[in-house]
Amino acid sequence: MPQDVSVSAAPPIQGSRLLERLESLARIGPIPGGGSCRLAFTDDDRAGRDLVVGWMRELGLEIRVDAIGNVTGLWNVGSGAPVMTGSHIDTVRTGGRFDGNLGVLAGLEVIQSFQEHGVTPLRPMAVGFFSNEEGARFAPDMMGSLVYAGGLDLEEAWACEGIDGTTVGAELERIGYRGDSPVPGPAPYAFIELHIEQGPVLEVEGYDIGAVTSVQGISWTEVTIAGQSNHAGTTPMSMRHDPMLVVAEVGVFVRQLAHRYGGTQVATIGRVELHPNLVNVVPARAVCTVDLRNTDDDLLTAAEAELAQRCDELAQSEGVEITTRRLARFAPVAFDERIIETVETVAVRHGHRVTRLPSGAGHDAQMLARVGPAGMIFVPSHRGISHNPAEYTEPDQMIAGAAVLAEVMYRLAHEDHLETGEPS
Amino acid sequence: MPQDVSVSAAPPIQGSRLLERLESLARIGPIPGGGSCRLAFTDDDRAGRDLVVGWMRELGLEIRVDAIGNVTGLWNVGSGAPVMTGSHIDTVRTGGRFDGNLGVLAGLEVIQSFQEHGVTPLRPMAVGFFSNEEGARFAPDMMGSLVYAGGLDLEEAWACEGIDGTTVGAELERIGYRGDSPVPGPAPYAFIELHIEQGPVLEVEGYDIGAVTSVQGISWTEVTIAGQSNHAGTTPMSMRHDPMLVVAEVGVFVRQLAHRYGGTQVATIGRVELHPNLVNVVPARAVCTVDLRNTDDDLLTAAEAELAQRCDELAQSEGVEITTRRLARFAPVAFDERIIETVETVAVRHGHRVTRLPSGAGHDAQMLARVGPAGMIFVPSHRGISHNPAEYTEPDQMIAGAAVLAEVMYRLAHEDHLETGEPS
Repeated sequence: MPQDVSVSAAPPIQGSRLLERLESLARIGPIPGGGSCRLAFTDDDRAGRDLVVGWMRELGLEIRVDAIGNVTGLWNVGSGAPVMTGSHIDTVRTGGRFDGNLGVLAGLEVIQSFQEHGVTPLRPMAVGFFSNEEGARFAPDMMGSLVYAGGLDLEEAWACEGIDGTTVGAELERIGYRGDSPVPGPAPYAFIELHIEQGPVLEVEGYDIGAVTSVQGISWTEVTIAGQSNHAGTTPMSMRHDPMLVVAEVGVFVRQLAHRYGGTQVATIGRVELHPNLVNVVPARAVCTVDLRNTDDDLLTAAEAELAQRCDELAQSEGVEITTRRLARFAPVAFDERIIETVETVAVRHGHRVTRLPSGAGHDAQMLARVGPAGMIFVPSHRGISHNPAEYTEPDQMIAGAAVLAEVMYRLAHEDHLETGEPS
Repeated sequence: MPQDVSVSAAPPIQGSRLLERLESLARIGPIPGGGSCRLAFTDDDRAGRDLVVGWMRELGLEIRVDAIGNVTGLWNVGSGAPVMTGSHIDTVRTGGRFDGNLGVLAGLEVIQSFQEHGVTPLRPMAVGFFSNEEGARFAPDMMGSLVYAGGLDLEEAWACEGIDGTTVGAELERIGYRGDSPVPGPAPYAFIELHIEQGPVLEVEGYDIGAVTSVQGISWTEVTIAGQSNHAGTTPMSMRHDPMLVVAEVGVFVRQLAHRYGGTQVATIGRVELHPNLVNVVPARAVCTVDLRNTDDDLLTAAEAELAQRCDELAQSEGVEITTRRLARFAPVAFDERIIETVETVAVRHGHRVTRLPSGAGHDAQMLARVGPAGMIFVPSHRGISHNPAEYTEPDQMIAGAAVLAEVMYRLAHEDHLETGEPS
């Protein structure tokens, strides 16, 4: 008889084991304040990989390492393409303990709990970690999942040069993770990723679980303003060509734009550099970055156009030369509606307060969405802090997220079989 | 019979000799682009000092080196306190060839021209160079003239620590310029300084000579904004506490303030530093500097108060903590009206287009104004560029300025004697 998936069917996970594994992984590449530094393809990254691969082997999973260093542990039961989960274990230089790691180790815990309770899903299950999600040493970020999904050529990825002059290919070889599984990788039946929110919304609004609807489109623009360096005392205001005034006007403008657009529109000036950057000198040159994001690609495109027009106006009015460079542009990604609904349903059934929300950050799941149905589960981040040793999620919240993941994976492993009437 | 000072009485200067000396001095501490680097109390500063002192000796001047390293060459003729001129020969790291140097070497040329033409003034004449006017290695700037005028205690000045960890006292001793003439120094009968404008006004408005009326009051404020570092994608606008938004608002505000005040009011944000200064991170902290200047101290005080109030408003509205630190505050200095008039009269008599204007930059003359009548003569700076190897003033303009200086010094050396009926 088909299993009844309208009630909870996944076995309980063992939360303490998940927390212990998070703790063990955090001790590799430790940094002051309790975080970790495991930049992609470093010795610390290798040590983290070895630890997780060891756990995968203990569960009897088939280990596959592909040519960009993505690692998949496959529990080859049932039939068809696997229900896949995973995330990443590389970190930024000032990484926290949970970003990425939670999704990988929760996936391990899900499979282990199924195994221990003798629950064999109808589809294979897989847990993976993708290389260089952070992009803190080698650009672009989300490199492993992008190559996995066929969005970046392998040779091009191998040739990427890092901030220390090394290349991805050489470093992969050095740490022993240039594997022989082909890329692009096999499309899973579905992909579901558990991740900390890295933003403040769930906590502030009092939710336990986020059913992630989409990943915001991202537009990064570098604005360079060439003016006339002058003495701050001797140059009348009417004779100035001040790059910093332009930076200030752009800063005020993009804030107003974000308020005007509302919705998911955000706008940030995160980087400013003035030259010569002296108290009594009108700068010769300023460089700033504008980070615009929206889940609606048309609105994002409109925001970009408004920014460009405002720069033109300011170049005229201040008598400066403004050049812009596109640093990054990703279209928004919409997750699979059935997976979003499943996350909502399961979370409610588990007694959690759940909300739909977009992700403002990029994640591996958005790359996997190119090759099949994908979705994400968010758990709260205290004060929205991430990429920082102070990154924190309550243990109970992480365990709740992992339990939702288990149930969602169970349902994904069975839904299609049920619909097609396959025997359980 | 008294000399008739209503017509030109100073002998002609020898312009080519002035230009040659400027050239010789510029070759000490040369930097690419034709400028000089002679930071105060370095070996290059010593070499520059030795060169100028050598020229003073050739003219038979009495050399006095005081305890802060100010050097005066006295032509001890006539009677009473000397008519003094001078400036400085230290430079910023990217110094031009004329800033300071012109005033010192023009003073030498004036005395030499008097001597060669057998014109003996009724008062002594002196030419000096003051230590560390630029403040590029040791703060505060205008240190030598400030100590000379009794505005800074000698021991305190000696103890000043430089950007390289050395102290003024030790470095003065090392280069052999910690002299034994007492400070504060003797008050001159009058002090007149020739200097390049370091601003664009004379050139843009088509004047040859500026009769400097005053030095703007200066207020430097460092504004530090502590907000909440957050992910630029995951943090909704309504939950942000963004230090960069405050910097932008302050930048726009001070520009508007300067326009609203008009007159000599200028306002500049010259330095901005964001932490962590990454494209996709709302900064945790921002530091910027606000340079406000006005010739009217009441207006300058009002501008400071408006800035403080605007910072308070922004701290409230953005939910950030703003602290301010006063980096510098100098009251405006008014020059002696009779000297200003004399500069105007002489310039007109020499056939020059002359205008009154305030100085936006600080100069040694403003310190000397504390102890006696003082004034300044400006010659144009091409495009207002200074503190840069591209600093440039036409040779003819410099020679014209030196000739005006000669005539003004002549008049100052005689006016009082005439009024009191002393024989010439």
